[in-house]
Amino acid sequence: MPTYTPPLRDMQFVMHEVLDVTSDFKAIPKYAEADAETINAVLEEAGKFATEVTFPLNMSGDAEGCTLNKETHAVTTPKGFKEAYHKYVEGGWPALSCDPAYGGQGLPLVLNQCFYEMLNSANQAWTMYPGLTHGAYAALAEHGTEEQKQLYLHKMTSGEWTGTMCLTEAHCGTDLGLMRTKAEAQPDGSYLITGNKIFISAGEHDMTSNIVHLVLARLTDAPPGIKGVSLFIVPKFNVEKDGSLGSRNSIYCGGLEHKMGIHGNATAQIVIDGARGYMVGQPNKGMQAMFVMMNAARLGVGNQSLGLTEVAYQNALAYAKDRIQMRSLSGVKAKDKPADPIIVHPDVRKMLLTAKAYAEGGRALAIYCSVLLDKAHNHPDEKVRKDSDEMLSLLTPIVKAFSTDNGHIATNMCLQVFGGHGFIKEWGMEQFVRDNRINMIYEGTNTIQSLDLLGRKILGNNGATLKKFGKLVAQLVEEEGVNEKMAEFINPIAYLGDQMTKFTTELGFKGFQNPDEVGAAAVDYLRVAGHLVHGYFWARMAQVALREIAAGNTDPFYQAKLQTARFYFAKLFPETATLMRTARAGSKVLMDTDAALA
Amino acid sequence: MPTYTPPLRDMQFVMHEVLDVTSDFKAIPKYAEADAETINAVLEEAGKFATEVTFPLNMSGDAEGCTLNKETHAVTTPKGFKEAYHKYVEGGWPALSCDPAYGGQGLPLVLNQCFYEMLNSANQAWTMYPGLTHGAYAALAEHGTEEQKQLYLHKMTSGEWTGTMCLTEAHCGTDLGLMRTKAEAQPDGSYLITGNKIFISAGEHDMTSNIVHLVLARLTDAPPGIKGVSLFIVPKFNVEKDGSLGSRNSIYCGGLEHKMGIHGNATAQIVIDGARGYMVGQPNKGMQAMFVMMNAARLGVGNQSLGLTEVAYQNALAYAKDRIQMRSLSGVKAKDKPADPIIVHPDVRKMLLTAKAYAEGGRALAIYCSVLLDKAHNHPDEKVRKDSDEMLSLLTPIVKAFSTDNGHIATNMCLQVFGGHGFIKEWGMEQFVRDNRINMIYEGTNTIQSLDLLGRKILGNNGATLKKFGKLVAQLVEEEGVNEKMAEFINPIAYLGDQMTKFTTELGFKGFQNPDEVGAAAVDYLRVAGHLVHGYFWARMAQVALREIAAGNTDPFYQAKLQTARFYFAKLFPETATLMRTARAGSKVLMDTDAALA
Repeated sequence: MPTYTPPLRDMQFVMHEVLDVTSDFKAIPKYAEADAETINAVLEEAGKFATEVTFPLNMSGDAEGCTLNKETHAVTTPKGFKEAYHKYVEGGWPALSCDPAYGGQGLPLVLNQCFYEMLNSANQAWTMYPGLTHGAYAALAEHGTEEQKQLYLHKMTSGEWTGTMCLTEAHCGTDLGLMRTKAEAQPDGSYLITGNKIFISAGEHDMTSNIVHLVLARLTDAPPGIKGVSLFIVPKFNVEKDGSLGSRNSIYCGGLEHKMGIHGNATAQIVIDGARGYMVGQPNKGMQAMFVMMNAARLGVGNQSLGLTEVAYQNALAYAKDRIQMRSLSGVKAKDKPADPIIVHPDVRKMLLTAKAYAEGGRALAIYCSVLLDKAHNHPDEKVRKDSDEMLSLLTPIVKAFSTDNGHIATNMCLQVFGGHGFIKEWGMEQFVRDNRINMIYEGTNTIQSLDLLGRKILGNNGATLKKFGKLVAQLVEEEGVNEKMAEFINPIAYLGDQMTKFTTELGFKGFQNPDEVGAAAVDYLRVAGHLVHGYFWARMAQVALREIAAGNTDPFYQAKLQTARFYFAKLFPETATLMRTARAGSKVLMDTDAALA
Repeated sequence: MPTYTPPLRDMQFVMHEVLDVTSDFKAIPKYAEADAETINAVLEEAGKFATEVTFPLNMSGDAEGCTLNKETHAVTTPKGFKEAYHKYVEGGWPALSCDPAYGGQGLPLVLNQCFYEMLNSANQAWTMYPGLTHGAYAALAEHGTEEQKQLYLHKMTSGEWTGTMCLTEAHCGTDLGLMRTKAEAQPDGSYLITGNKIFISAGEHDMTSNIVHLVLARLTDAPPGIKGVSLFIVPKFNVEKDGSLGSRNSIYCGGLEHKMGIHGNATAQIVIDGARGYMVGQPNKGMQAMFVMMNAARLGVGNQSLGLTEVAYQNALAYAKDRIQMRSLSGVKAKDKPADPIIVHPDVRKMLLTAKAYAEGGRALAIYCSVLLDKAHNHPDEKVRKDSDEMLSLLTPIVKAFSTDNGHIATNMCLQVFGGHGFIKEWGMEQFVRDNRINMIYEGTNTIQSLDLLGRKILGNNGATLKKFGKLVAQLVEEEGVNEKMAEFINPIAYLGDQMTKFTTELGFKGFQNPDEVGAAAVDYLRVAGHLVHGYFWARMAQVALREIAAGNTDPFYQAKLQTARFYFAKLFPETATLMRTARAGSKVLMDTDAALA
């Protein structure tokens, strides 16, 4: 059975020592009270919740899965899931970072970020039930009418109701312009919605009295394609004006998918058979509101893989210290044992350090993004809001794709550390791999993320936002350029930054002639960008560690950080050498292959 | 539901056009009759068997798994598995490449290689039941007494009995020196064996009347460690001198593992409770005989991933042509449809071509190895036998690790082509990923393979065998060095060969000072070697294709081959740039990490 310890020390390091988030919060009136002590205390409790309440249900939830009663359309979640959800509600956890106007606790999003990392380590499948609600909350908070907000957000904040996002149909996943679900306007201002959705995570369950489905559909007179899509609230139970539950709406679960992983989450086929719906935002502008939700979800998916990387690492590390097998190549290490613990072997260390480096780099990036999100929404200075929003939009596809690909690499390596035992269910490692696998796909496949990054976010504004990130790198280079001890961390990112700038310009020209050049380079490009970003945060973390060590701090945490930074730059970051080559190799070898792909 | 078409044309291309295997066979008296026509005809029938008999049982076998009756210790395999095995026996398939002295058909091993590739594409879990038998057969054929061979090999050749290899115990997988299973000599020359084995593939089943377990155990007076391990035949039913079945031996299945994949194969915990055993080979020399089996199994495991790569590719290709989603970045391609098939997108093509290039490169390597194996055993010239054996021992860890890692990459990419549907069981793609995952672990983890390659096979003889492979590369470079059209294929391997030679010398020196340098570089080194070998075969395949095209051959097969070769060198081979860097980055960043890995 796997174990899990919340990485509170590392979260505190990133928040307080690297990013100094409370200084940012001081500039945001509503967070003026959010000091380090409060943050740390809340996260300690949050860690207990994850460890004690949802983690023990992870393997049993995987083994049991969800069941659908085909007659009543009711879904039963695995044993204990419902009770864990009730504890989540009782603890006030859904409200953590929600708006006090709707009953929220109004704490910074970074708390929810760290809490959800821990929940994802503990049990990704369970976490998706409350997790989806945050995206729906954000979409309604930004695009709903005041009446809608009053009617729905209180109950979502309290956790009495959950939310979903209903986008995908059998014939359209990436390409939502092909959507067929219809919405017919009714005289009372509501709509009758009809259609079939698939892959709806947490789409039906037994945890709450109501589910607030946010459904994309097409008005009867809508223009074709993506510009004819509108967003609707379609509650499972209609909601009366006083907030009480009315009649059962005609939206129900028609089937559950059998999946590779996240068995504990109900991935529902949703049948919408003339259900009552209420428009959110403007007609045919549904994608705008949905993107609020999707961007939240994309960060959330990156956070899922971060959680899985961390928990897989912790267990592989424990196993590598415990399992004895063979002697060290450089001489016996454990003289009192018949063999050495496998952690003495260089490649076992490499696999462990890979997971550790991706977890800690990913955590710094994720926390940085949560602060950007808070600043984008809540900072009093408009320029800060705009800049934060831009930077976040650049980093979102990187968080989604880079963190989930790294989660794939890391969970597979951690499984490998267990040898044959990694393949056996009782050790729990293979579940982390299976659960992580969906993260590379949903909320926009990682290829789609790369096109979003390179096509829209970078070439779409001539690299302006990328340059802003480049300025952060340049600033660090300037700060530390004369510090010899920082050279091993600074030089690689300075060099890569220059290479990327040059390559981006090249690609701009090539893509103008032939857009397939962008498509051919995008996935490699995103991974290079991911390393630039991780490299930047690793350099900043090394900077803090070096400073503490120089000041005489003997806490081994700082040595550990420095060693991991060195490993990262020596063994993982050099992947960019190949990626730059293959990205530059262009589209011809892909597109001139009609005979090969016949 | 996935589909599968045996890649007969590609097998024929490698056998007849690239490697000209029948010329080799002409020099081997027992294969003088094995002409291309015979080979092709047998493989066509073999393909039908895989497609029609075992492929339809792949998904149902995964869903159903094996069950153990805890009272009788009987294992029931998934529905249809037993009947499929009977058809396999009726068709005479077990005997294909076995020795006529024991009832075999005496055909070259390349036939069995290609047959098993197809069986693995069709159903890896089923294929392991007969597959393990070949390894046990090889060990007995080489190290058994004539009496043992007469008693067991006929029944294994006919398929009446299957074989297993019982090595692993709960506390020792890689490190067989820790083994505890005991063997006590009996006055009649037999032994009483007692111990517990785990992870025994095909360890118990309902397909045959007997199972020939080959069991590693320790004589009561054995020296400690790996030099005190002997090999024993421990049949499920004792075998009388006339070959009839006697009493039930005290070796039975105590439990079945619940695994990530290969659910249809019974991975058994084997309890040996004073069972009657018969020594194979010499006392305390069990590893010698076992290595015959393990080397066969290592090639076999590479072949499993080759099969999965091929079938995953075929299905992803079909899906990419069928699924419409978004428009091509370079303009509408399917004007009559609401969107373009996703095969127009550069990254989808890249994922498909990755799988195709690894399948076809892996197939060339696997077929080459099967010819080496035949030459090592059967060639009349001793020098050819010795050279072939040496080359094969160099290539075996590469086949095992490179093919299975590539299978991991390829099956995951093919799953990704399906988007969300790839995660759903009914499409079958996620099973290929799960089944492949064990291939990177069993028969020696891929890290162990890399240490075997670099430590034993390369540095162990000062790079002599590597130089022999280098000569093949040099010969090709010389042959084609003036051919401009071959430059794009020849230059990269010539350059990489030089780099490897230099780096191997470097490593020899560094490893002498500090053996952990070898352990730190080995995994990267093996992957570089894999690309050198694949690159060599891709260059040879391109050579044939260019020659045919120049001669006016308009079969699009040759264009396809050329396009795939170009893709391989442009997008996959450059991985070596990073691998050389990270291999050179040394062991310090791994070993000086005690704080990080505390």
